[in-house]
Amino acid sequence: MTVKQLSLPELVEQCVRLGIPAVGLWREPVRAYGLEASARLVRDAGLTVTSLCRGGFFTADGWLDDNRAAIDEAAALGADTLVLVSGGLPPGGRDLAAARARIAGAIAQLAPYAGERGVRLAIEPLHPMYAADRCAVSTLDQALEIAERFPAEQVGVVVDTYHVWWDDRAPAAVARAGAAGRLHSFQLADWTTPLPAGVLNGRGQLGDGVIDLRAWCELAAAAGHTGPVEVELFNDELWGRDGVEVLEETLKRFTELGISES
Amino acid sequence: MTVKQLSLPELVEQCVRLGIPAVGLWREPVRAYGLEASARLVRDAGLTVTSLCRGGFFTADGWLDDNRAAIDEAAALGADTLVLVSGGLPPGGRDLAAARARIAGAIAQLAPYAGERGVRLAIEPLHPMYAADRCAVSTLDQALEIAERFPAEQVGVVVDTYHVWWDDRAPAAVARAGAAGRLHSFQLADWTTPLPAGVLNGRGQLGDGVIDLRAWCELAAAAGHTGPVEVELFNDELWGRDGVEVLEETLKRFTELGISES
Repeated sequence: MTVKQLSLPELVEQCVRLGIPAVGLWREPVRAYGLEASARLVRDAGLTVTSLCRGGFFTADGWLDDNRAAIDEAAALGADTLVLVSGGLPPGGRDLAAARARIAGAIAQLAPYAGERGVRLAIEPLHPMYAADRCAVSTLDQALEIAERFPAEQVGVVVDTYHVWWDDRAPAAVARAGAAGRLHSFQLADWTTPLPAGVLNGRGQLGDGVIDLRAWCELAAAAGHTGPVEVELFNDELWGRDGVEVLEETLKRFTELGISES
Repeated sequence: MTVKQLSLPELVEQCVRLGIPAVGLWREPVRAYGLEASARLVRDAGLTVTSLCRGGFFTADGWLDDNRAAIDEAAALGADTLVLVSGGLPPGGRDLAAARARIAGAIAQLAPYAGERGVRLAIEPLHPMYAADRCAVSTLDQALEIAERFPAEQVGVVVDTYHVWWDDRAPAAVARAGAAGRLHSFQLADWTTPLPAGVLNGRGQLGDGVIDLRAWCELAAAAGHTGPVEVELFNDELWGRDGVEVLEETLKRFTELGISES
């Protein structure tokens, strides 16, 4: 999604050229290119699919079929993790606790299905500014509290620095998630201000913002995270630039963080 | 601030006409009209000043003198509460914990000064989307943790529904604040989406958004809050309308919430 201006074949080609060993994919471009064709493309290039984004939105009509399809797609791509963005309040709703309970109930229905297909569900807490309309799960503690009702190989959490950086309780939750084998996805994005209208597409390029990304990487490593570190930037300015240039810049910023490879 | 398009005399006149017994003021209009003149205007009209906004911004140059002046101004207005918006990260800073420690240190310097003048400092946690640039105190728990280092008659907290509505830990913190006599200010604003660019001036008119305002009022009452309930809306659309009309609409919405008068 960081370089959504690139087609799937362009993305794969550039990852190979730049030595990026693994990539997280989103469902829409995969579906547009074709699921089987996408799986073949990535596999033939020797890339790993780190995660598929996204399932969730459990308050929308048809959520169950849609999420089962997302699990199937993740399995077909060889992605071991499906990221869940759980959805906010239902139309006219004002009860966040009820929305969170509904999310937990939906995950209970999906977890065995995912487990049978070797796909781990990863609950992503989104920044509290999305609580109403995108995700009622706003903190890592909340995400973990739901995940812990299920086996770790079925349900875990996503730690995205953009969403949790402000939370003084998040570091302890990262450690708890890691110790329990539930840190299924770790993503980086920086926090820059002012936020754009709608607050969706203003995630900062690594190093452009105020998040101590190196500290968060060390925190994840200390929690036992040895899986991939993804970079997920929703950013209108980056999307308006040449995709290869943005990919190279992102790799350079990532490398400058000095994260030890896994 | 909800009707900042009204001059101070217009505001006072309309409050008296509409039977609004008390009003929260901001420093800038008070200074523009003159501190003594403002105090006299409000007093002669029989109004109470619920709170003065705002002190804080403890990372800015000159913060100590400015905050002492704010305390003096609150005392002169007969406002028993000064709201503190504590400030975000210093320029180039990435250490939120250090910013929070600096805030606590600043309040330690101010608390006795405030106490001697009969003014209570009220730490306002701002929504986490403001953590970088406006207020590193993002949750009611964080605000209380700082406040509890001082006597309750010197330092307490502000509960503003706009900032805390998403937080599943906030209700317990409201109860804790109330039990300790630290719920110094209670403010209402609704949450509407999409958020505007800069996310500053999109606070929803009561009833227009997704916050269960009645439930929050009941929560505050259950915590022993018998003080004023303020309505603080930063909203470009409301500011663009006739101020008297907005004041009447706000009073109507407030009345519809059915909050028992104190």
